[in-house]
Amino acid sequence: MSVDRENLESVLKRRFFYAPAFDLYGGVSGLYDYGPPGCALQANIVDIWRKHFVLEEDMLEVDCTMLTPYEVLKTSGHVDKFADWMCRDPATGEIFRVDHLVEEVLESRLKGDKEARGLAAEPDKSEEKKRKKKVKEIKVVKLDDQVVAEIESILAQIDGYSGPELGDLMKKYNITNPATGGPLSEPLEFNLMFETAIGPSGQLKGYLRPETAQGQFLNFNKLLESNNQKMPFASASIGKSFRNEISPRSGLLRVREFLMAEIEHFVDPLDKSHPRFAEVAHIKLRLLNKTVQQEGKTDITEISIGEAVSSGLVDNETLGYFLARIYLFLIRIGIKPDRLRFRQHMANEMAHYAADCWDAELQTSYGWIECVGCADRSAYDLTVHSNRTNEKLVVRQTRETPLVTEDYEVDFDKKKFGPKFKKDGKKIEQYLTSRSQDELEILATELEEKLKISVNVDGVDAPVEIEKELITISRKTKLDHIREFTPNVVEPSFGIGRILYSLMEHSFYIRDGSESRAVLSFPPLVAPTKVLLVPISNDDKFTPFLRKISAALRRLGISSKVDDSSATIGRRYARNDELGTPFGITVDFETLTDESITLRERDSTKQVRGSIEEVVKAVQSMVAVEPVSWEEGTVKLTPFTSEAEE
Amino acid sequence: MSVDRENLESVLKRRFFYAPAFDLYGGVSGLYDYGPPGCALQANIVDIWRKHFVLEEDMLEVDCTMLTPYEVLKTSGHVDKFADWMCRDPATGEIFRVDHLVEEVLESRLKGDKEARGLAAEPDKSEEKKRKKKVKEIKVVKLDDQVVAEIESILAQIDGYSGPELGDLMKKYNITNPATGGPLSEPLEFNLMFETAIGPSGQLKGYLRPETAQGQFLNFNKLLESNNQKMPFASASIGKSFRNEISPRSGLLRVREFLMAEIEHFVDPLDKSHPRFAEVAHIKLRLLNKTVQQEGKTDITEISIGEAVSSGLVDNETLGYFLARIYLFLIRIGIKPDRLRFRQHMANEMAHYAADCWDAELQTSYGWIECVGCADRSAYDLTVHSNRTNEKLVVRQTRETPLVTEDYEVDFDKKKFGPKFKKDGKKIEQYLTSRSQDELEILATELEEKLKISVNVDGVDAPVEIEKELITISRKTKLDHIREFTPNVVEPSFGIGRILYSLMEHSFYIRDGSESRAVLSFPPLVAPTKVLLVPISNDDKFTPFLRKISAALRRLGISSKVDDSSATIGRRYARNDELGTPFGITVDFETLTDESITLRERDSTKQVRGSIEEVVKAVQSMVAVEPVSWEEGTVKLTPFTSEAEE
Repeated sequence: MSVDRENLESVLKRRFFYAPAFDLYGGVSGLYDYGPPGCALQANIVDIWRKHFVLEEDMLEVDCTMLTPYEVLKTSGHVDKFADWMCRDPATGEIFRVDHLVEEVLESRLKGDKEARGLAAEPDKSEEKKRKKKVKEIKVVKLDDQVVAEIESILAQIDGYSGPELGDLMKKYNITNPATGGPLSEPLEFNLMFETAIGPSGQLKGYLRPETAQGQFLNFNKLLESNNQKMPFASASIGKSFRNEISPRSGLLRVREFLMAEIEHFVDPLDKSHPRFAEVAHIKLRLLNKTVQQEGKTDITEISIGEAVSSGLVDNETLGYFLARIYLFLIRIGIKPDRLRFRQHMANEMAHYAADCWDAELQTSYGWIECVGCADRSAYDLTVHSNRTNEKLVVRQTRETPLVTEDYEVDFDKKKFGPKFKKDGKKIEQYLTSRSQDELEILATELEEKLKISVNVDGVDAPVEIEKELITISRKTKLDHIREFTPNVVEPSFGIGRILYSLMEHSFYIRDGSESRAVLSFPPLVAPTKVLLVPISNDDKFTPFLRKISAALRRLGISSKVDDSSATIGRRYARNDELGTPFGITVDFETLTDESITLRERDSTKQVRGSIEEVVKAVQSMVAVEPVSWEEGTVKLTPFTSEAEE
Repeated sequence: MSVDRENLESVLKRRFFYAPAFDLYGGVSGLYDYGPPGCALQANIVDIWRKHFVLEEDMLEVDCTMLTPYEVLKTSGHVDKFADWMCRDPATGEIFRVDHLVEEVLESRLKGDKEARGLAAEPDKSEEKKRKKKVKEIKVVKLDDQVVAEIESILAQIDGYSGPELGDLMKKYNITNPATGGPLSEPLEFNLMFETAIGPSGQLKGYLRPETAQGQFLNFNKLLESNNQKMPFASASIGKSFRNEISPRSGLLRVREFLMAEIEHFVDPLDKSHPRFAEVAHIKLRLLNKTVQQEGKTDITEISIGEAVSSGLVDNETLGYFLARIYLFLIRIGIKPDRLRFRQHMANEMAHYAADCWDAELQTSYGWIECVGCADRSAYDLTVHSNRTNEKLVVRQTRETPLVTEDYEVDFDKKKFGPKFKKDGKKIEQYLTSRSQDELEILATELEEKLKISVNVDGVDAPVEIEKELITISRKTKLDHIREFTPNVVEPSFGIGRILYSLMEHSFYIRDGSESRAVLSFPPLVAPTKVLLVPISNDDKFTPFLRKISAALRRLGISSKVDDSSATIGRRYARNDELGTPFGITVDFETLTDESITLRERDSTKQVRGSIEEVVKAVQSMVAVEPVSWEEGTVKLTPFTSEAEE
């Protein structure tokens, strides 16, 4: 279970899976480049994702721009809410994240108090290292008992304060720059989006998108049209998003530029069943529900998604369907089932509009990491964009039976009404037609009883009296043939970089018995390179065979690499075990006579022998979209033993 | 040849190939979203690109960040040179591109002068429309003959002025805001990169990359290591780049955010041969060389790339190899050979460091458009980054025979030298050891003849005299076993969006005989969807057959769409001709009895009939990486005639 992270990271660096971007220039934290194996692994994960979700379900894939104008993200809520609170030291220019600073300073005072009272504070070196603490020195000062109690209460709810509240705490407790004692600015909101200016005037403010979702929402009408107006349907998008983290750490898990794959499944709010739910209902998931968490526990319930939905634990079939599909995807690319759980959001972490939200979390040496979010965003996004732009983003469906409604309506006797009220007529008419049904009911009764009504109309002096002969207020029956509704959205959202890193941790092991022989046991489907080709020596006479094999593999779309360096075959295999290459083909002197070659499997190090054609065919069956096992794939080949592993 | 652009654009919009991004919010010029067919077309082009270049030649693909710190782009030259000159009207805030403004104003004065002289100015309405002219009104004012001559000379070289020179012209000719007559600011450089701030302090200035190349150069050492130090090799990268155009137009051809695919092929500057050049030497290309252009002509030379390289027209084999490979790629995805040419850069458009540069240009209704650049960037990029960071970016090779050099060297008699010059000793020593070979030769002669030398050393008062007993300056023989060199870079750089748009123009036609039946005749390999499935009616009994066929296709990785709408089969086919779907399969009443289905080809509208298995197999052979023709693919199927087309 525990991963030797230092060893893993050394392999990933040595093999250039990824590296800090711009390290020649000292690097920029939170930015990483993917080298050839990392890039191929990423491309394979994306390719499987596209087949598993987009092609399998006929989703409508779009590619929208990253540059996004201010207005769009203002409407979506990101300009106001995608932020952390910061304060600045005007003297040094240093910047602090306010909640972290207040927490740290108050914690240090509690520690100083403990020491003053002769109680040992617990050491927390690892914590210190992790958090890059701003407070370097604990001052031994005894506090009043009452102050200690106050501070303890504040710390218990530190995540719940708003920026201004944090500012009040800074004043009350005289919190300054821990290094210099200098005063700090009021808390300012620091938005986590990268800002830029579009066009030459600098007047069109824009951001790099924080998610791919908004582009999909904005294209809703075109997508619905592309889908011949049929519901439900899903759009999907794969692309980079950005988040200007204050102080990124944890390697690939918290970065400023990252690849996302997002699905927006549009569904009728009155019917969130899913036509293919039955296909996945039996799948068992490890769920960590919100009730358990609210009790401060982390117990997992392992139940089928069918049960989870029918018991109400998961809000609806569509959400449940996607949880199961996410599970199947992650397992398919090599995530270990016992290191995957679905954690439900608690009420206080969920957006107010969300109906339900579950994160697929993967266990890594950094803890349980959110890698896929799956939220029911309700009609929120379509509604806010529609309200802001006055463009309808709705589905119109012909009702099987028309909806019958009976409403109060006001009719005017124009011939009498106009002359009577003259220039005020328009205002009065508008006033009456914009009344609610409840108000109209009262007015109708009044008119019936008193034969006139008396109303106050904005912009018209004195109460207006209207006699019964001028208007009628009566109930009328209407037939509504078209149902118009704003769809709800179920959004599975994948952080590809986080999945990729977790997969590397889940796949990493040190081969038993041979020291420092690291292996990345990627499933063939995702492995960066499928086949390593090794000639027994770098003699030219092996070249035609290597060419023939790699051409045959290339025709089948199977990636291979030749290693004709002078290292021993064992060393060359070891190098490729580190790259996660699942199969190795050896060309040796026997090949020259009978064209037979050896095929080796990375994890078992088992070997078999056969003709070029047979071996290529075996490889093809084992790297297929629906791959067969080694035993099945090589059943027709001859087992082979060699000393090559050493 | 001529394309009905209005008609094409209406199809592309209706079928949501692409659309202006954020059009719900009024749009942002230069930003486009790709809808489902555009996105699939783009993905297919990228996929073929990756197979054609990266996999075929074992290139090392990397994925580097778009966010790039200031220092990197300062070093690469983009901060200083990736810019246009602008000026601003402080009163109105309006912004002008200075060279365009000066040109336009001076041209309008020449016209006004012509009118004043009673000569008719040529009408140039189309030009006016294209350029969105700032000068709306021509003032009829006669100029001095001398001024006319001056202005004509200025206009002839308008592209050659620097910003300050343009500023001088504005002063000299009193050029103001044409609309208001108000004064304008001095010319300012407007950098075309999008700027942003990385991290919370706002102090780390960054840009969105203008090309993917820099990330590849910065990772050179890691890539060379990944390639086991072998040369030559290539890296490749596919990703978005950005350019903050002043006033984007021409649809997808000039946008602010675009997908690029770039290759950096690293090669020994002393040996630019290419091991696979022989494979392409026979390929004939349509070349527009620089000599022809300098004569003001556009005549094409059609010769084999072998001849072009051996005659020196194309600088070297590696460059020539890539020109041929670019040609093969473009033809493969459906570009028309007669609408493709390679234009050589003239001396004044090429960067000073470039050895040679050719653009693959595609003919569109907007003219000949640069879609792929192929430049020999020499050692420029690696050299500047290495100089800036003091990190070597070089290849080290063991020489077969060591290099023998004989150089002057200075030896000091430390015992005498130190005591004599005391604190100045270090400076004098440093001065002497940093002399060039030529200087050392002169000093050696002086020492020999005068038995002492006299030198001026910075920071040491008065000339320093050094006697022969303190130093020797003599020639020494050295053996150099390692050759160290900075590789040159040949860079094929593809603008995927421009290729995609050109391909749409090249593929578009109106079917003879039936009005407004538009067809996009994409080759099957790139077509967004390969197969349309149409049941003859939307009766449920066809569903099992549709499911069976689409499952069979999906297993083979072939994308298909069902259209079970109530439109006639002919109308459904017509809709899919607009989407460029190459094949249609009809399920009809006969299918219910014998499982036979009809296969239709988009361009010929020919139809054949066979079993599900036979038809799927035929489709597979025609959409393969190396596809067979319709005739070949359907040879075993029965020709079929129906009335469905109407």
